[in-house]
Amino acid sequence: MNYFSSNFKLGILGGGQLGKMLLYTTRKFDVYTSVLDPSAEAPCKIACNEFHQGDLMDFETVYNFGKNVDVLTFEIEHVNVDALQKLEDEGVHVYPSAKTLQTIQNKGIQKLFYQKHHIPTAPFSIYMSLEELLHSVENDVISIPFVWKSTQFGYDGTGVKIVRSLADLERLPNVECMCEELVEFKNELAVIVSRNVSGEVKTYPVVEMEFHPEANQVEYVICPARIPENIQAKAKKVALQVSEALQHTGILAVELFQTQNDEILVNEVAPRPHNSGHYSIEASYTDQFEQHIRAILNLPLGNTASKVAGIMVNLVGAEGHTGEVVYENIEKIMQLEGVTPHIYGKKQTRPFRKMGHVTIVNEDVAEARKVAATVKQTINVISK
Amino acid sequence: MNYFSSNFKLGILGGGQLGKMLLYTTRKFDVYTSVLDPSAEAPCKIACNEFHQGDLMDFETVYNFGKNVDVLTFEIEHVNVDALQKLEDEGVHVYPSAKTLQTIQNKGIQKLFYQKHHIPTAPFSIYMSLEELLHSVENDVISIPFVWKSTQFGYDGTGVKIVRSLADLERLPNVECMCEELVEFKNELAVIVSRNVSGEVKTYPVVEMEFHPEANQVEYVICPARIPENIQAKAKKVALQVSEALQHTGILAVELFQTQNDEILVNEVAPRPHNSGHYSIEASYTDQFEQHIRAILNLPLGNTASKVAGIMVNLVGAEGHTGEVVYENIEKIMQLEGVTPHIYGKKQTRPFRKMGHVTIVNEDVAEARKVAATVKQTINVISK
Repeated sequence: MNYFSSNFKLGILGGGQLGKMLLYTTRKFDVYTSVLDPSAEAPCKIACNEFHQGDLMDFETVYNFGKNVDVLTFEIEHVNVDALQKLEDEGVHVYPSAKTLQTIQNKGIQKLFYQKHHIPTAPFSIYMSLEELLHSVENDVISIPFVWKSTQFGYDGTGVKIVRSLADLERLPNVECMCEELVEFKNELAVIVSRNVSGEVKTYPVVEMEFHPEANQVEYVICPARIPENIQAKAKKVALQVSEALQHTGILAVELFQTQNDEILVNEVAPRPHNSGHYSIEASYTDQFEQHIRAILNLPLGNTASKVAGIMVNLVGAEGHTGEVVYENIEKIMQLEGVTPHIYGKKQTRPFRKMGHVTIVNEDVAEARKVAATVKQTINVISK
Repeated sequence: MNYFSSNFKLGILGGGQLGKMLLYTTRKFDVYTSVLDPSAEAPCKIACNEFHQGDLMDFETVYNFGKNVDVLTFEIEHVNVDALQKLEDEGVHVYPSAKTLQTIQNKGIQKLFYQKHHIPTAPFSIYMSLEELLHSVENDVISIPFVWKSTQFGYDGTGVKIVRSLADLERLPNVECMCEELVEFKNELAVIVSRNVSGEVKTYPVVEMEFHPEANQVEYVICPARIPENIQAKAKKVALQVSEALQHTGILAVELFQTQNDEILVNEVAPRPHNSGHYSIEASYTDQFEQHIRAILNLPLGNTASKVAGIMVNLVGAEGHTGEVVYENIEKIMQLEGVTPHIYGKKQTRPFRKMGHVTIVNEDVAEARKVAATVKQTINVISK
């Protein structure tokens, strides 16, 4: 198959920042791309060859879009999976597959999958409604505290709550949910696994994550994770176990807990380039976006090792600011050693909206961490 | 000035591969761009916000384009410099300036500039016509061999000839020309200097170049150059001397000869990102394209050091092949360690046409050089 400056067409469902970063590689390789996104202001609107506006959850829209491409991928999980299945049945190459997405899209099914495949994960129960959950709490089948997750449509902190009191319980929406034991962890880790159509597999180094306590969004992603080698090996092993069980194609981001007694538990996975791999653009031999493209086009996977240490800081909208965005002090952070800002191109900011990220690279991870703290204290995503 | 996701408009004259790679940074920073290029098939056509088709040498076209942007830059020297001058006079920020371009655009004026500023360069003479040149040869004012350069419109080997015989002389076109002594060099080197609007200056490491003997196009660019440190220091010093004399804004690529007795002579310069800096995308902390954008927007310059060694191989059309391009064996080179192909997006190949480049990075430059040789032997730019 000839992908480079050819008639081959790659379809991408979703035109957000992940899609935008995928397009850096399709531009570099001159692979023809067609993007579908509901928003006329999608960050992907330019740099793809064709942009189509439409609902990603609508069967007809996704099906018709997919019929016109050779390989179809997605940068967001909330897409119509029945349309993907029909496209696959009709011979369109969908990577990751409809089956992979189906397993991951519903957080209940995802947990049952881990259970079935003996993949270590926190104990959980699934409830069809809030009523069912309340009933279980009343009868001490499940005890507070626990983590509540909507089985569907959760994203970046929405659809996830830590329930610490009966009052918290009352504020939950009445939807199907999965509740799991609150893990007392030492570290949150992630491992990105790449797998191409032929089944070649490569893992990226283990990264360490720090979350913002209120917004439940990642604050720092640190590569390499500053943990002992045997724990790194254990984390990679578990991530590979998930990859092997899923038989996915493309990037799989596996989020993990390192417990107080150094067990590794799978938190959740994403079958696409992921926030925890953004550092790779500056730090890795092959970044996660290029790797995803290589994987789904069945090209050889690139080297996943790092050239230097990398730390990623998310740029989220400051509290109290809604409106046209201004990146206050961005020129100050650009003076610091090894700092690259990525601005996703959303014109409007609002509290906690993901507007961009900053990568800090350095030969020395401790030095990078110091610079990252300065970046965090200096830049402000505000409105005009 | 607010450049990021704002109403600020950057204009770029020329929409070729250099412009395409500049757009990776404008996309990353979400800087609004408008591109002018004569070709409807220009590699920049997507990924800019506005694309205008028009003649870069036409005064009105360039002037009207420039009136609608806040900062104007170019990725090719063959643009109407009078239009740039008028735009500058009327308050548009043109970086590099019309004056810088004027000095560089004509190879005779460029040489006179070096002479005036005591910058070491090979001895030369300027002739207004072929007749004048022939007259000087007949009268032994200039002796064969020498390097003949058209003072205008030379690019990538066109407009440059090594005259070794009277027969060579007869094949020259009748244009204004600059002839210089044929330098017996040990190495061809290049130093990229970046300078922002405020005058902050940073140099990249010295690179070493190898040319294809027939096509007069660069075959390998090797960073760091495998030459003694004192020669590197000397090369940087001369490059900085040129930068200081020109007072340019943006990237200045300074091509140099290291003579048999280790003198450094300036060959020629380009006031823009340059083939000799392509390695920087994968190898440097800040690549030359981002650095050019930082410089012309008067942002702080980034770190010019390398994370790893980098070697660049040009992908030029194979002899005997004209037509729709195929990158034969590209998947084989992608299996090699640290290899990234860049495909410029030209649909038609022809002999020696620059179609792309491949970067090879490795901690060890000797190892990278081995891989580069394999890349060169493996990939073939052919027609269908």
